[in-house]
Amino acid sequence: MEKTSTLTAEEKAFFMEEAIKEARKAEGLAEVPIGAVVVLDGKIIGRGHNLRETQQQAAAHAEMFAIEEACRTVGSWRLEQAQLFVTLEPCPMCSGAMLLARVEEVYFGAYDPKGGTAGTLMNLLEDERFNHWSYVEGGILEEACGQLLTDFFRALREKKKQKKAGNL
Amino acid sequence: MEKTSTLTAEEKAFFMEEAIKEARKAEGLAEVPIGAVVVLDGKIIGRGHNLRETQQQAAAHAEMFAIEEACRTVGSWRLEQAQLFVTLEPCPMCSGAMLLARVEEVYFGAYDPKGGTAGTLMNLLEDERFNHWSYVEGGILEEACGQLLTDFFRALREKKKQKKAGNL
Repeated sequence: MEKTSTLTAEEKAFFMEEAIKEARKAEGLAEVPIGAVVVLDGKIIGRGHNLRETQQQAAAHAEMFAIEEACRTVGSWRLEQAQLFVTLEPCPMCSGAMLLARVEEVYFGAYDPKGGTAGTLMNLLEDERFNHWSYVEGGILEEACGQLLTDFFRALREKKKQKKAGNL
Repeated sequence: MEKTSTLTAEEKAFFMEEAIKEARKAEGLAEVPIGAVVVLDGKIIGRGHNLRETQQQAAAHAEMFAIEEACRTVGSWRLEQAQLFVTLEPCPMCSGAMLLARVEEVYFGAYDPKGGTAGTLMNLLEDERFNHWSYVEGGILEEACGQLLTDFFRALREKKKQKKAGNL
């Protein structure tokens, strides 16, 4: 069954900017800068950013917090008709959570060649063997989303290099 | 890379019984009876049962709670050397969470023909393209784990039938 987007290019860019704001919150905490928002009827009903190191929790991904808050907002585990925006292509856990929540449309920014499962390594979101599948679109504000990550990892390498030099 | 089990048949049965105890807690709340435990060095460090309807949260699966508690117990998102036991074959979200937490060995009870991703529809846990993979073994106390689910859904159908008859 073919699914289609219900949003304009302007709406997609607008909500991805909001996901980027979330990613910047993660960056401020020295976390890998990834952010997400869940949208329903044009309104943001859930926001989240990566908190893995801060919380020391394996599942503390941006999308999980955004879905959790969205479920609280609507008072239901069903997020039918909702859209999810995330700055990086989702991993298997987050792709799976989107299916469980029955998210209708998924938009991501940068592609993840190492672990992305919304089209790169596989496409869990459009696998018709599961009881739900979603419309998926990657590359929304791709450069801005990717740049955040590139800058973060470059700064991290610099820091490590300086630390090593200081220790000599 | 071939991974192997570090547990005896007795240990596997013992810990799956503990996962079944968790599943019964879910059953007591009229939730689909699925339970999980995380084990490290022969000790249970995390427990969980399905709470999707109670919490109205899409991600409220047994495994997620067990992993969350285990991370809290060890004070780290890394559950290296840990074993996870769950009464039903994990879904994509839970399989993904196990990979993120670097769980070493995964044991499940009943197979899930509709959504299992630890060997049935696919095997996310042994896909060497991800940066971690686990040893996986299904069918531990399979009959007991499956019976819990069969009984639950049979009772649910009976209830619906009676309700319908009452409404006529």
